[in-house]
Amino acid sequence: MEKKIVLLPGDGIGKEIMESAKKVLAAIESEYHHRFILQECAIGGDALDRYGVPLPDDTLHACNEADAVLLGSVGGPKWDNQPPEFRPEKGLLGIRKGLGLFANLRPVKTFPPLLHASPLKEEIVKDSDMMIVRELTGGLYFGEPSERRNNGEDVVDTLAYSRHEIERIVEKGFESAQIRNKHLTSVDKANVLESSRVWREIVNEKAADYPDVEVEHLLVDAAAMKLITNPSGFDVVVTENLFGDILSDEASVLTGSLGMLPSASVRTDGLGMYEPVHGSAPDIAGKGIANPIGMILSTALMLEYSLGMQEEAKAIESAVMDCLEQGYHTADLKIKDGKQLSTDEITEAI
Amino acid sequence: MEKKIVLLPGDGIGKEIMESAKKVLAAIESEYHHRFILQECAIGGDALDRYGVPLPDDTLHACNEADAVLLGSVGGPKWDNQPPEFRPEKGLLGIRKGLGLFANLRPVKTFPPLLHASPLKEEIVKDSDMMIVRELTGGLYFGEPSERRNNGEDVVDTLAYSRHEIERIVEKGFESAQIRNKHLTSVDKANVLESSRVWREIVNEKAADYPDVEVEHLLVDAAAMKLITNPSGFDVVVTENLFGDILSDEASVLTGSLGMLPSASVRTDGLGMYEPVHGSAPDIAGKGIANPIGMILSTALMLEYSLGMQEEAKAIESAVMDCLEQGYHTADLKIKDGKQLSTDEITEAI
Ligand SMILES: CC(C)[C@H](C(=O)O)[C@@H](O)C(=O)O
Ligand SMILES: CC(C)[C@H](C(=O)O)[C@@H](O)C(=O)O
Repeated sequence: MEKKIVLLPGDGIGKEIMESAKKVLAAIESEYHHRFILQECAIGGDALDRYGVPLPDDTLHACNEADAVLLGSVGGPKWDNQPPEFRPEKGLLGIRKGLGLFANLRPVKTFPPLLHASPLKEEIVKDSDMMIVRELTGGLYFGEPSERRNNGEDVVDTLAYSRHEIERIVEKGFESAQIRNKHLTSVDKANVLESSRVWREIVNEKAADYPDVEVEHLLVDAAAMKLITNPSGFDVVVTENLFGDILSDEASVLTGSLGMLPSASVRTDGLGMYEPVHGSAPDIAGKGIANPIGMILSTALMLEYSLGMQEEAKAIESAVMDCLEQGYHTADLKIKDGKQLSTDEITEAI
Repeated sequence: MEKKIVLLPGDGIGKEIMESAKKVLAAIESEYHHRFILQECAIGGDALDRYGVPLPDDTLHACNEADAVLLGSVGGPKWDNQPPEFRPEKGLLGIRKGLGLFANLRPVKTFPPLLHASPLKEEIVKDSDMMIVRELTGGLYFGEPSERRNNGEDVVDTLAYSRHEIERIVEKGFESAQIRNKHLTSVDKANVLESSRVWREIVNEKAADYPDVEVEHLLVDAAAMKLITNPSGFDVVVTENLFGDILSDEASVLTGSLGMLPSASVRTDGLGMYEPVHGSAPDIAGKGIANPIGMILSTALMLEYSLGMQEEAKAIESAVMDCLEQGYHTADLKIKDGKQLSTDEITEAI
């Protein structure tokens, strides 16, 4: 097959780990006789430095024409004092909204060789395997008005959703549960928010269309507790944008393998943007020691979800597991009696 | 001294543990020659059943005339399908707003005899001792509009703050840090929300008035991670209402002693409402096995913060510690080689 992929290395370690993704894609090309047409574009701080905006029109245009997008990471202290419109994160929010990537899929599971690095007791975390489905283009992130009033005496942000926006993400949650373990936890704050009451109604309506999926409603505060006390009690979690931001980051540190976690942001026609969960790690950027596994597993997720290449995705995932089982790791992970490798070395090993 | 205290037992185990608070208050009265004038009022589901509203005017009036308020807990499945205005939680939100209790103080610390019950590894959680200062009468909880629009096609909630509301809670955060370990973590989502940008500006302005306090800004998603990976890295955390709801509940399960945690909701003149962090536990209500320690330590917090009785508060706290060290515990806690007691028995022991 021939597929067009846009690469957005971004900032910090983003550039280094994107090189790893390219090597993995080249290996897949030659092994499976595909052709990947790669186009590199600017986003985030990198785009600010080169073009004065965090999301150049050319970047958005190229992504819209592509079959899939790979993103490294955006942001860094260099741009922290910029006004809101000129910050790297605006590029990220802009591309999500611009491409209509309304569903953020964040799988979290334990990797047995890394379990000892979890802050949780092994017996609590051991069987955890969940998928957080976060709404990504609505809620407090994009609601209007979001402004100061009365000469700066008051300030408001708006949590806004349409029925349609809630329905499509809830459907995504049910569909994810159907191909996993058929359990869906819908997280809201229905005892306080009107938007959460609508959310809960829609989940209950849709439940009729997925009779094989068991549904549980959990308040966001209770969900934040249960992630710690009983993480293996989740299968699929579906929630709105800001709750999803908080809970998916909370979940990402449970298993001790933050550096390994991939994520996907997708829309209904299959176009998706794939990126590791970890940040741009400016402190180690340029040193060649960054862990590329989150990026490599994001590449696998891209092959699976956007390019219809299940077998190829599985091949990457088992290469990663093999590598860990042989004790190869980067500086951020510690495997007992293992061998620490650089970004390039572990990429080659995989 | 003579002090007026309103007791709001509420629902579920609230009634039982309030009896424990009364016994402790009686012991303090006779030991220290105080006089506590106790008045019991209805709130939550109990008030709904008896008066048809979750917060009767008489209750609010009595609280306003009192020196302090003790609350058991509100809510339960019995009232879960009521319309929003007739749910027990409305009583809780109503009393917070009605009394102007804008600052919720939630101390979280480890109790060495209970450390083994933490879901976290002992080396991660062991020195944790933090105070979460949550704004309690603003933000998404009370912002208008909060409504459905266009025939139910759209829904909005509003996150609203005035400068004054942010200033007073931020000051509370700084003051708490001053009497603790002089470190303040302000949590916001300044990369997305305008209200968070105002919040951050105010924290930076106020910092000049508290030069002895070190200030750190953390995004709410990063805070949710750090609570798990490095809980002992916090001293005082100050944040807005909904972030505080999520993070304080997350924090409450870290140390394995949820049943022991007290909380205070206060305003500037000293009036405060004190309640355990745990819920109404309808599953064990009426069985006489509920853990009254969260309620008893809330009573101690009341003596300290609202009634100026530091010594008396310390006496209660050391009685609780003694009791745990001797291995006495309730059904929800497990102390190795300890002795399990009923609600009444452990209250007597304390
Ligand atoms: C950078 C920030 C705007 C973003 C978000 O809050 O969505 C990030 O935290 C994420 O989760 O991808
Ligand atoms: C019952 C509910 C409205 C309340 C809140 O969200 O404030 C509770 O979770 C709390 O934290 O006291």
